Amino acid sequence: MTISILFAAGEARWPQYETPLTTALTAAGITDVRIAREMAPEEVDYIVYAPNPDLQDFTPFVNAKAVLSLWAGVEGIVGNRTLTQPLCRMVDDGLKEGMVEWVTGQVLRHHLGLDAVLARQDGTWRQDVPPLARHRPVGMLGLGELGAACAQALAALNFPVAGWSRSAKDVAGVTCHHGEAGLREVLAGSEIVVLLLPLTAATENVLDAAALALLPKGAVIVNPGRGALIDDAALIAALDAGQVGHATLDVFRTEPLPVDHPFWGHPGVTVSPHVASETRAVTAAEVVAENVRRGEAGEAFLHLVDRGAGY
Amino acid sequence: MTISILFAAGEARWPQYETPLTTALTAAGITDVRIAREMAPEEVDYIVYAPNPDLQDFTPFVNAKAVLSLWAGVEGIVGNRTLTQPLCRMVDDGLKEGMVEWVTGQVLRHHLGLDAVLARQDGTWRQDVPPLARHRPVGMLGLGELGAACAQALAALNFPVAGWSRSAKDVAGVTCHHGEAGLREVLAGSEIVVLLLPLTAATENVLDAAALALLPKGAVIVNPGRGALIDDAALIAALDAGQVGHATLDVFRTEPLPVDHPFWGHPGVTVSPHVASETRAVTAAEVVAENVRRGEAGEAFLHLVDRGAGY
Repeated sequence: MTISILFAAGEARWPQYETPLTTALTAAGITDVRIAREMAPEEVDYIVYAPNPDLQDFTPFVNAKAVLSLWAGVEGIVGNRTLTQPLCRMVDDGLKEGMVEWVTGQVLRHHLGLDAVLARQDGTWRQDVPPLARHRPVGMLGLGELGAACAQALAALNFPVAGWSRSAKDVAGVTCHHGEAGLREVLAGSEIVVLLLPLTAATENVLDAAALALLPKGAVIVNPGRGALIDDAALIAALDAGQVGHATLDVFRTEPLPVDHPFWGHPGVTVSPHVASETRAVTAAEVVAENVRRGEAGEAFLHLVDRGAGY
Repeated sequence: MTISILFAAGEARWPQYETPLTTALTAAGITDVRIAREMAPEEVDYIVYAPNPDLQDFTPFVNAKAVLSLWAGVEGIVGNRTLTQPLCRMVDDGLKEGMVEWVTGQVLRHHLGLDAVLARQDGTWRQDVPPLARHRPVGMLGLGELGAACAQALAALNFPVAGWSRSAKDVAGVTCHHGEAGLREVLAGSEIVVLLLPLTAATENVLDAAALALLPKGAVIVNPGRGALIDDAALIAALDAGQVGHATLDVFRTEPLPVDHPFWGHPGVTVSPHVASETRAVTAAEVVAENVRRGEAGEAFLHLVDRGAGY
């Protein structure tokens, strides 16, 4: 019987995904398949999903076996009460690799003081050799697929990495903490803090004024996670007071970041326009195809979202 | 019998090195030792050396068993005809770690296009996601201690790394080339080229006009090696023609780089004031102490310079 897959991930993505999806499904042995951007809801077996205004109500998809998100962060859909089907997050090797590269590059940029070198191209010869990475403690908030991979890449460069997650985890080469006391310990000991937590009710504003005050004076924040993990006003105040030395932010509560937002042009903020990483069509299509194959074979889905936990 | 060590590495370094040297020598079992900045030449057993105007003639040191350089690059002393004693280069874990961090940071900076993001803090939201590192070929000229370590760190981040050295080498994870044909192949295939060659008659101006013309258009050059590896005028011409996209230079023929040098202020050049890495006193002192121990025990010295090859 023909398997019907609804591509509900935005018109702009369709040209990128049409061929990779067909290729990946064929490679997974799924050949009797129909992929389209519109079809009768009751005919749909799987929904390939990214947040979009046209799909808010999942009630009509009475026969759908799963909703397969192209996004790693699912906070925009996980609370949708019409969604009764299994929901799977995207965990894409390409997205993970890109994130490791971006986080490593930003941490090294701050560690090496590259901005100061770039700003001194006027004939000033000032030799500020940075400390070794082994003397620069880094905190990684979030030890999921992305956080753990970034933490390990930084540890491989000799940074002492302290990681934090809601529940206890074990990541080789990383000192792992959890719970409220663990969070305070990681913040107090980290000269550079990277945020790769999922956005949930429990993590929203995790970096509020009280948390920022725990950091060593002049600490740097790197946020490729979600904008709402940080209390924007508290961050601006901490930057202006010198408590936070710099913040490199790739994600924001509203994107694109409004032109009148105080982050733009703030000397202590680098605004990065949500480019830390993105799902790559070729590798993501393979994850989608594998989950369709699993669904048809009655096997457990990859990266199934725990609706209670929110990720 | 007391071992006499002359510290001939500049007055400024003495306060940094005095305690680490004593500590490291004690740890190596060398306790009956005298270290000083001045002593009768015929009494000297070992010379700890860095380039300085006060020591050009090694003839009077008739009993010296070795000259132990604090510098990795020995081009300033290797051709000294008065030097008949064994000469050892510095290979310092701290120097190597610092170099890996600097090279990795600079390669990621160019790979990720960080300069463009830093320059666009004016409210412009432009999402240029870079390719993955696995699609960004990097060339490493020089596969000595530093080059091999940097090549492997980049390979660990998924960059396809092609390495080149004078003689054939084998570095895990790196595609190794050698000889003239190998150099042309590495240059032709590398979007980012890192220079970590020793400076010898054979490597001076290795990046001349002909070599620069072999690079893919818009390639980036990163030079933490030695300034004279590059023909300055040819590089400026290649930058102005768009053949080279950017050059990040940490070393120069004359240092500090004269304020009227065209590299300063050139939009295609980042001048870094020789800070890529430096010998660290604590770790370097351990290498010196180990070589003194070896000399006393009649064992082969570490990092003995091949005077014919020049490094």
